[in-house]
Formats: sequence, C-alpha cells, structure tokens
Amino acid sequence: MARVVVDVMLKPEILDPQGQAVQRALPRLGFEGITDVRQGKRFELDLAGPVDEAALARIREIAGTFLANTVIEDFEVRVEELTDAPGAATGSAGDNAAEEGAVR
Amino acid sequence: MARVVVDVMLKPEILDPQGQAVQRALPRLGFEGITDVRQGKRFELDLAGPVDEAALARIREIAGTFLANTVIEDFEVRVEELTDAPGAATGSAGDNAAEEGAVR
Repeated sequence: MARVVVDVMLKPEILDPQGQAVQRALPRLGFEGITDVRQGKRFELDLAGPVDEAALARIREIAGTFLANTVIEDFEVRVEELTDAPGAATGSAGDNAAEEGAVR
Repeated sequence: MARVVVDVMLKPEILDPQGQAVQRALPRLGFEGITDVRQGKRFELDLAGPVDEAALARIREIAGTFLANTVIEDFEVRVEELTDAPGAATGSAGDNAAEEGAVR
C-alpha cells in the first residue's frame, strides 16, 4: 500500500486570517522570532495500487478539482514512504525519517 | 529566512469524519482505488533567525502546546528548503523540488 500526500495552502497573495491569528498569539505566549505563519490543509491518501505516473496524474486531478480551490489555493502532491512505526509515545509523530520526494 | 513546517494529523485511532467524507465522495466522482483518506493541518512558520536545535525545540514546544491537541493529534516538525519560485501558473504549487528532511 502506498501513501500520497496532498498539501493545500492558500496562495501567497491571499490573506490568511487563521495563520495571522496564530502568528499574533505567539509573542503573547512567549515565542518570539516567528515572522509569518500560514495555515493550510494536508491530505493523506492511501492507494490500493502502485504509485505510478498514471496514479499521480489521477491524484493531481483529484487535488485540483476537489481537494483544493485553485482560484485561491495552491496544492502539492508528494509520495510518502510508509514505515511500520507510525505512532510515538508522547504526542509528537512517529519515527518516519523518510525523505519525501516532491512530485508534481 | 528559514521556513519550518508543522504537520498536524489526527492520531490513527481517532475517527476522521472529514477524511471519510472525502474518501466516500471519490468513487462517486469517478476516482477508484483510494482506500483511505485522512485530513489534517499544515502550518508554515517563517523564522527570523537560523533554524538550529534551539529554534526547533522551541517550535516543537509551540506545536505541542498550541498548534496540536496532543490528546487526539500527532505532529511532525520539518525544515523546508526555501526556493525563489514559490508560485506556479496553473493552480498546482511551485517548482520547489527540494528534499524535505524529517526533523523532530
């Protein structure tokens, strides 16, 4: 089984009130030095078949027509290596140190 | 300027109605072969200073206390290479083919 990740972010020229709210809150909470925050969506799609060019083209079509609003959002499709250690003990994510090759 | 990405996903054992809605809709829309969809959040944080171990530790603290609800969510902190070509012409994201090293 293969996993493909689709990251959807607002285009740089589109105002991001959620990200701004986070960015403004950080100094109040004692965290300085963060100059900008943008918030977007991450979709993890598990595929039954192999991740070949045809599958990626199909996922790009899904992302462009259904997961992202391409008027205001950019998306990025990436293949993610799956490891057998998805969870960690203390809230942070697993031990997956796989490189993620950017695929569009 | 450096960019750090924080991915926040529901833990595997937590029900994800948003992802399920997407997964169930795909066959109706003509896309078969997607066995599971999980939806989460992606935060892009721009840092004023260098991305050293201290900065990453601070961002892990921000992520664990503020960006993610660690009772139900896992998070992952990654350093992202910044390129000068952020946007693309046609809705898909930019031409950033940088490898993203997983850093926790």
